[in-house]
Amino acid sequence: MTSTFLLNNAKYAANFDQGALALPPSKGAIVLCCMDARVDPLGIFGLDIGEAHVIRNAGGRAIDAIRSIVISQGFGTSEIAVVHHTDCGGFTFTSDEISHKIKHGAHDEPAVVHAVDSIGDWGTQKGVSLENSVAVDVELLRNHPLVLKNTKVTGWVYDVRTGRVAQTVRDDGYSHLNEDAHL
Amino acid sequence: MTSTFLLNNAKYAANFDQGALALPPSKGAIVLCCMDARVDPLGIFGLDIGEAHVIRNAGGRAIDAIRSIVISQGFGTSEIAVVHHTDCGGFTFTSDEISHKIKHGAHDEPAVVHAVDSIGDWGTQKGVSLENSVAVDVELLRNHPLVLKNTKVTGWVYDVRTGRVAQTVRDDGYSHLNEDAHL
Repeated sequence: MTSTFLLNNAKYAANFDQGALALPPSKGAIVLCCMDARVDPLGIFGLDIGEAHVIRNAGGRAIDAIRSIVISQGFGTSEIAVVHHTDCGGFTFTSDEISHKIKHGAHDEPAVVHAVDSIGDWGTQKGVSLENSVAVDVELLRNHPLVLKNTKVTGWVYDVRTGRVAQTVRDDGYSHLNEDAHL
Repeated sequence: MTSTFLLNNAKYAANFDQGALALPPSKGAIVLCCMDARVDPLGIFGLDIGEAHVIRNAGGRAIDAIRSIVISQGFGTSEIAVVHHTDCGGFTFTSDEISHKIKHGAHDEPAVVHAVDSIGDWGTQKGVSLENSVAVDVELLRNHPLVLKNTKVTGWVYDVRTGRVAQTVRDDGYSHLNEDAHL
């Protein structure tokens, strides 16, 4: 893809007009979402380049985003939107299943076994509801000793078929999960 | 920002026409880049929604992207573009500096000290050149036991002032670093 990338970038740079943007995100926001190719983390919220830090990993999980969130907060961010999405690959297997599959595929080669064990938790969500998965990560961030106390953390579910996000955890403490618990 | 997000998303969903995209990235690519608000990881390469997994963290570092890359490769990706960028916050402090600052700011509260120590490496690059930082991550991925052997890993430096990317590590083994070493 190298030659395509270079050609496309020449066009991108020729029309580039964002060179004056400052390092700190102008809206003080972080979007934490999945690496999934179909998710446009800024577009779905109507955010522009320069307005938010975007952290993306498999599943949009909080567990390996802490390092980045702490550094982000050093540059003034104070809101985090946690976004998980429908049809997410992370919900198709368990941590044990992926560990076993990789080790087995490598005929238990010691370097592979060691690397798989050092990952430990693959952050996958098989058997968990989307709303629960979001709520777990919101709670993790709200209670994490390195996330600043006054940070607003909200939870969202994005539908890759419709382009719609639904807010499942609000900043006022409302959560779809709590509502379910009251039924 | 919740009400703005909801309002903006209603407009986004009203014009949404990407609901038929499949889960696996259609170009089999991963872009690994920084969470920096000024970087548009698809735009700079002329990629569209649906074509690439996008992994983003502080600095665009490989070290905490392995979990995501392995899961991504399970969905067929076989190329990784590692992108670091000019004016990156990660180059303004060392790991020790950030650890010390956070612990000191929390008056060495045990939960904070424990959490900082469990992060250990903040992946910051003070004193390292951009080209070196990219090359280190490309090498880490090329030699990682969990990254598939035939994966094409390339390295890029993005200039937030001009919108240009320069390729600093090619798939044929060329690297700016090696060139420097030959001078």
